Amino acid sequence: MNVYLITIGEEILIGQTINTNAAFLGEKLSENNFDVIKSVTVADEESDILDEFKHAFNKADITIITGGLGPTHDDITKKCIQKFFRSKLIPNNEVLSDINSFLEKRGRKISKALEDQALVPHNAQVIRNYFGTAPGLLLEKDNKLFVSMPGVPQEMKSMFLNSVLPILNERRIGDTNFVQRLTLQTTGIPESMLSERLGNLTELLEGAKLAFLPNPFGVKLRITVSEHNEEIARNKLQEIEQRIRTKVGRFIFGKYDETLEEIVGRLLTERGLTISVAESCTGGMISNMLTNVNGSSAYFQRGVVAYSNAYKVEILSVNEDTLAQFGSVSLEVARQMAEGVRSTSGSDLGLSSTGIMGPRGATPEKPVGLVYIGFCDDKLCTARKFIFGNDRLTNKQRTAQAAIETIRRYLLGISIDD
Amino acid sequence: MNVYLITIGEEILIGQTINTNAAFLGEKLSENNFDVIKSVTVADEESDILDEFKHAFNKADITIITGGLGPTHDDITKKCIQKFFRSKLIPNNEVLSDINSFLEKRGRKISKALEDQALVPHNAQVIRNYFGTAPGLLLEKDNKLFVSMPGVPQEMKSMFLNSVLPILNERRIGDTNFVQRLTLQTTGIPESMLSERLGNLTELLEGAKLAFLPNPFGVKLRITVSEHNEEIARNKLQEIEQRIRTKVGRFIFGKYDETLEEIVGRLLTERGLTISVAESCTGGMISNMLTNVNGSSAYFQRGVVAYSNAYKVEILSVNEDTLAQFGSVSLEVARQMAEGVRSTSGSDLGLSSTGIMGPRGATPEKPVGLVYIGFCDDKLCTARKFIFGNDRLTNKQRTAQAAIETIRRYLLGISIDD
Repeated sequence: MNVYLITIGEEILIGQTINTNAAFLGEKLSENNFDVIKSVTVADEESDILDEFKHAFNKADITIITGGLGPTHDDITKKCIQKFFRSKLIPNNEVLSDINSFLEKRGRKISKALEDQALVPHNAQVIRNYFGTAPGLLLEKDNKLFVSMPGVPQEMKSMFLNSVLPILNERRIGDTNFVQRLTLQTTGIPESMLSERLGNLTELLEGAKLAFLPNPFGVKLRITVSEHNEEIARNKLQEIEQRIRTKVGRFIFGKYDETLEEIVGRLLTERGLTISVAESCTGGMISNMLTNVNGSSAYFQRGVVAYSNAYKVEILSVNEDTLAQFGSVSLEVARQMAEGVRSTSGSDLGLSSTGIMGPRGATPEKPVGLVYIGFCDDKLCTARKFIFGNDRLTNKQRTAQAAIETIRRYLLGISIDD
Repeated sequence: MNVYLITIGEEILIGQTINTNAAFLGEKLSENNFDVIKSVTVADEESDILDEFKHAFNKADITIITGGLGPTHDDITKKCIQKFFRSKLIPNNEVLSDINSFLEKRGRKISKALEDQALVPHNAQVIRNYFGTAPGLLLEKDNKLFVSMPGVPQEMKSMFLNSVLPILNERRIGDTNFVQRLTLQTTGIPESMLSERLGNLTELLEGAKLAFLPNPFGVKLRITVSEHNEEIARNKLQEIEQRIRTKVGRFIFGKYDETLEEIVGRLLTERGLTISVAESCTGGMISNMLTNVNGSSAYFQRGVVAYSNAYKVEILSVNEDTLAQFGSVSLEVARQMAEGVRSTSGSDLGLSSTGIMGPRGATPEKPVGLVYIGFCDDKLCTARKFIFGNDRLTNKQRTAQAAIETIRRYLLGISIDD
């Protein structure tokens, strides 16, 4: 069954509020096997809203509307519903009593505007609101469903999960289409190269869909399988995952929304290993990411942000001759920084970054985007060179991610070179 | 002039990615006096996309499309544009050379898929992409404009601000409704208290609009003035800004999208002062934020992330008796950490954080959210207590922001309390 989302409110159009309601509904509906075909935001203008109702009615089985149900003059969704469904407004006592007890709890008195919230279209089913005064509305016409909910996220979410979704799921019974989705998270390989390594997608996917979703930290691969039988869909998804892992498994660090630092944190905890970090170009971002994880104090020991050469020598025992000979942005200095922070901290592992993040600091031999990441344990001490882009913040993010990925590969015995 | 936004990508519909591109474009377009009338998200399906192109063409002066321009099979926006505008694809040498130098810098080779990125509709104006391989496209028909940009936020934003917006503004000349917007950024004061201090809004605003936009780093105040004369609108906006500054000026650190760390970086540079940071609970976030600023190496000297007491003693000369007596999360330890990092680094200023970010680590006397921030110069050494919330990441953000705000207030001679 397909769903059309309509968000009403100028604050979304002018970018003052990010449309998290649509994301929430999209996620929950997809999880429950509904197919969200379109999501539209319009201003609080009657003609725009009615236009959109018409489109939605023609296109979709279910239309879900959020916003414009409040008590102030700019809330006109109910009026539009009334026109579209040729409704009369009638007072609803259950809603009125909900509003009264809501206000009572907060020591407030009812006003004319709030009393009007209890007027509902005669042909609507009322959905109760436990977190605010505007009830939700559910209407049906030619076997198509219209649901209208308030735009306040807390009110909408509770109403949707507790009342609306069960009703929608009830109607979905008999629907014979089972959609299964999986997202694999990769890092350290560009989108186009990932696509190349996966080879012939028609063979790989056998009718399933694959989306490439790049961000500064890596590329997500989203697989979507649609079958008439749930078991078949699940099995097919597993097979495709397996085929993808065979081809690019080493670049896959996790599923769904797991972060790389969570994965690495779990591995370090399991093995009882500790780590310390010496950062130059990332300026604290690696330590910051590692310590974003709950319980990271069990394995994260020290962080040092050493921009200056003097501090690299003083605190990390980097060799002055090495600095003079190779410069601070070099393989050798990255290696010595990692070793320095490891040995002075007594941690099992040492990690380091040095590079030129831009916009300043480049030389003819060392362009913006040049980065070295160093990594040491008690036996091995190594460093890798990267060349990233021109944007300072993205360079910091990509460097920090590549550094943390170095730990993951080390811990899993995956070759660090690609 | 009105604008229709089209976002292409199933990841938005299923709620995997929140549509921040639409919010960004809505914000920038509104600031520049364009009227965003509708924002639509559709999946990567040819018929859906072409349908939407048709609607947009009938409704709006300008259509802005993001997404679906990548090098993989699921990117079909260019194909749709080709159909809608009856274009032939022709190779563009400028784009090809941009792609080549983009790849060269990263030590990568061109592939067939990437080479195809340089094929553009013969009737399109090409918008160069400095952060990726897909060029933007600008097409015109019956005096209506279509702009297509990649969906990767960094690529889209740079392209929009540097190339697209100037072209749109060129066309807007002659428009008669002048909307002026201003966003003031506050930090260190909750939304409700800010509202209280501003007092009677009707008197303050004289018909203008004011929105309160809270986030973990503070509350943005957005003023919108709409007048038929640009001069009048501008003056009115200035008067309102002045009235707001009189009431809550000390909490306002900047305008529009300036970050606190940029403001502080500018102040430090102007005064030729240097700073070093000792972090416990923020785990590197303060250093990371300070070093996000271009040119921060001029004033940022050292960062130390010291989770353990032993390291606080070793590297920051925190007194062992103080640790034993007050515990590491205390006013006295915050003060000593700031003094320790200042004196060992030889920086003009020292800044520190210690606290309990959660979910673990709380005691009956020291709850999750308890934070101390220390700050020292060569004369004064002080610390402040804060109580934030329960969420680890938000606590880190609020602590880092409060720490950097301490520097701003110090540099501007604003009282650090409340």
